[in-house]
Amino acid sequence: MSERLAVHENHTVIYEIVIEEDFKNLKSELNKLNVSKRKLCIVTETTVGAIYAEEIKKILEECAKEVFVFTFEAGEKNKNLYTIKDLYTFLIENHFDRKDMLVALGGGVTGDMTGYCAATYLRGIDFIQIPTTLLAQVDSSVGGKTGVDFDGYKNMVGAFYQPKLVYIATNTLKTLTKREFLSGMGEVIKYGIIKDKKFFYYLQKQADNIKNYEKQALSYIIKVSCDTKRKVVENDFKEQGERALLNFGHTLGHAIEKYLYTDMLHGECVSVGMVGAAFLSWRKGYLSEYDRNEIIDLLKLYELPVSENRICIENVLAATGSDKKMEGGKIKFIVTDEIGHSFVDQSVSLSEMKAALYDIAENQTKI
Amino acid sequence: MSERLAVHENHTVIYEIVIEEDFKNLKSELNKLNVSKRKLCIVTETTVGAIYAEEIKKILEECAKEVFVFTFEAGEKNKNLYTIKDLYTFLIENHFDRKDMLVALGGGVTGDMTGYCAATYLRGIDFIQIPTTLLAQVDSSVGGKTGVDFDGYKNMVGAFYQPKLVYIATNTLKTLTKREFLSGMGEVIKYGIIKDKKFFYYLQKQADNIKNYEKQALSYIIKVSCDTKRKVVENDFKEQGERALLNFGHTLGHAIEKYLYTDMLHGECVSVGMVGAAFLSWRKGYLSEYDRNEIIDLLKLYELPVSENRICIENVLAATGSDKKMEGGKIKFIVTDEIGHSFVDQSVSLSEMKAALYDIAENQTKI
Repeated sequence: MSERLAVHENHTVIYEIVIEEDFKNLKSELNKLNVSKRKLCIVTETTVGAIYAEEIKKILEECAKEVFVFTFEAGEKNKNLYTIKDLYTFLIENHFDRKDMLVALGGGVTGDMTGYCAATYLRGIDFIQIPTTLLAQVDSSVGGKTGVDFDGYKNMVGAFYQPKLVYIATNTLKTLTKREFLSGMGEVIKYGIIKDKKFFYYLQKQADNIKNYEKQALSYIIKVSCDTKRKVVENDFKEQGERALLNFGHTLGHAIEKYLYTDMLHGECVSVGMVGAAFLSWRKGYLSEYDRNEIIDLLKLYELPVSENRICIENVLAATGSDKKMEGGKIKFIVTDEIGHSFVDQSVSLSEMKAALYDIAENQTKI
Repeated sequence: MSERLAVHENHTVIYEIVIEEDFKNLKSELNKLNVSKRKLCIVTETTVGAIYAEEIKKILEECAKEVFVFTFEAGEKNKNLYTIKDLYTFLIENHFDRKDMLVALGGGVTGDMTGYCAATYLRGIDFIQIPTTLLAQVDSSVGGKTGVDFDGYKNMVGAFYQPKLVYIATNTLKTLTKREFLSGMGEVIKYGIIKDKKFFYYLQKQADNIKNYEKQALSYIIKVSCDTKRKVVENDFKEQGERALLNFGHTLGHAIEKYLYTDMLHGECVSVGMVGAAFLSWRKGYLSEYDRNEIIDLLKLYELPVSENRICIENVLAATGSDKKMEGGKIKFIVTDEIGHSFVDQSVSLSEMKAALYDIAENQTKI
C-alpha cells in the first residue's frame, strides 16, 4: 500500500512524499538521493530517538558514507536558537560540508528545527524528513516552513526551505499516545472543511477504522491531507494568497494555544479554533447551521475539544491582534460557506471575534 | 551619470542596482517599492551610522510610514548571532511584520547581517542595500549571499536571499580611508582577470583618475564589476558551477586572512591570493610570464600587497584544506590561462599550493 506524491515548484518536481507502512523502503529512497559519498546527521529528540534512532541509523549506514545522531531534549521549549547553535557546533565538529545532509526524525518541532538548520548551515544544505507524528506527517511535510521560537514568540525566526524527501511510515503512529494521534486529526479534518467535502464525509464514515489505526485508512487520509496542502502551497509558495486558507481555525487556535499550551496540544487548540471559525462563518451568514453542527460533530467524533472555558477572552483577543496574520492592521480571517469550501474574509471585526470566543467559552453546549 | 543594472533570476528581474553620485534619487527609487505604508529599519554600525544615518533617515521619512535606526558596534567581530538576536528583539519590540523592510547601510558586514536577518525574521521580509564601501558595492551587491560568522568560522551560518534594491552613491567612497578604498580595488581587478581583458587594461590606463575618485570612472568600474558578477551569478545562483570563478584569489586569500585579519583588509588578502593563483596558473603552464607580471604590476599600481612573509606556510595550507571549497576531498582551485579568462582546476595538489605560498612569502621580489 505504498503511496507517493510529487511536490512541485514552478512546475518542476522538487521532492516526493513517500507513504509506507514501515521503514523497509527507506534505503531504496535514500539511494535515489546519491547518499553513498555523503555524511548524514539524524536530528531527533529524546523521546522519538529512544524508539527509532538506532533502527534508522542502521538503515542509513547501509547506504551513506557516515551517519551521526544529534539528540536534543524533547519539548517545544527547546525549539530555539540555543538548540540550533548546539546543532551547528555538532556539524562543524564532525566536518559537515555543503554536500552532506540532515535527517529530521520526529514530530513538528524536530522537522522545523532541522529544516531551519539545513536552511542556514553554510547557506543551505540538503535535508530529508521522517515525520513520526500525524501532525508532522499531514502538516509540516508540505510547505517548506522551517523555524524556531524566539523570545516567547512562535516561529519568529525561520525560513522557507524545502526537503529533498519526506518518508512517512504509518506504523510510527502506533507509538504515539492516543491523544497525540487524535490531535493530529484536528488538522486532517481541517483539510476536509476548507477544500474537500467528500473527504470530510469519508472521515465521518471511517472514524472507527481510523481510530483503530487501520493501515489503508491511515495511508489514505495522510495522502489526501498532504495532497490538499500540496495543491494550496504550489499555488502560493510564499504565503501571499490562497495559502492563508490553511490558517482556518488557527487565528483563534494559536491565540488559545499561547495561553494553554501546557495543557492543550496544537490540534486540540485548532479544533477549538475551528469551532470559533465555524461560529463566525455562521454568524456572518455564510455557513448553514446544519454544516456548522456537522463540523462540531465530526470534531467530537474524534474526541477533540469543541469548547474551552479556561480562556480569558480579552487576553486571547489581544493575542489574535498581535498575530502574524495581521497585515496592515486588517486581520485575514478564514471562513467557510459550506463544508469543502473556504475563503479569506477581511471584514471580521474584533467584536465578532469576541462573540466567537464567548461561543467557545460558554455557549457551545447549547448547540 | 546615473547607471542602472537589472539582476535576474530565472529570466525575471528580481531587483535593480542603481549607481548615483549621491542620495538625491534614493527617495524616488524607494517610492517604486511602495513603502508609504511600511515601516523601515535602517541597520548600520557606529562608524558609518555616525556619517550617514541621519541623512538617510530623513530621506526615508519622506516616503515611509515610520523609520527606525538600529546601530551595532562596527567590526567583523560583531558579525555574529548575538547581534542578529539584538536586531530580532529590536524588530519585535517595534512590531515589525512581514510587510515591513530593512535597509542595510554600510559595508559588507552590515549587508551580510541585515540580509541574514531579513531572510530569517518571520521567515523572510524585504530588505534593500545601501553599500558604502567599494568592496560592498562591487561584491556583496550581487549574489544574495547573507550570513554571520559562527564560532570563529566565517559565514558559517547564512542564507541565499536577494535584496529588493541596491542603491550605490559613489560619493560615499570619499569617506573611506584610502587603504579601504584600494582594498576594494582588489575585487575590482579580480573581475578583469577572470572575465574581462578590456576592463583589466581600462583599470591600468585609468589608475590615476580612479585613485582620485573621478566620478565617471568610479561609476564605470562599479557598473562593470557588478555587471560581471551579475552575469556569473545569474548562470549559477546556488554556487554549483561557474560562480566558483569568483573565488579567484580567495582560496589562498581566505586562508591568509584567517591568520592576518587583524593586520590586513579583505581585498589585500585577495590581492596576495591572486598573486599566488597567478603563480600557480603560470607554474602549471596555463599562464604566460608576461600576463603573470601584468597582474602583479596592476595590483602594485593600486598599492595592493603582492607578497606576504608573515604567514606560516603549514598553517595557511591547513586552512585552505578546511576551506568550504573543498568538496568530496578535491579542492576547486581557480586558475587563469590569459588575462580575461579563468577556469576551475581540480588537479592542483597540496605541494603545488605550497609552492605558491612560498612564492608569496619569499620569491615575489625575484620577478
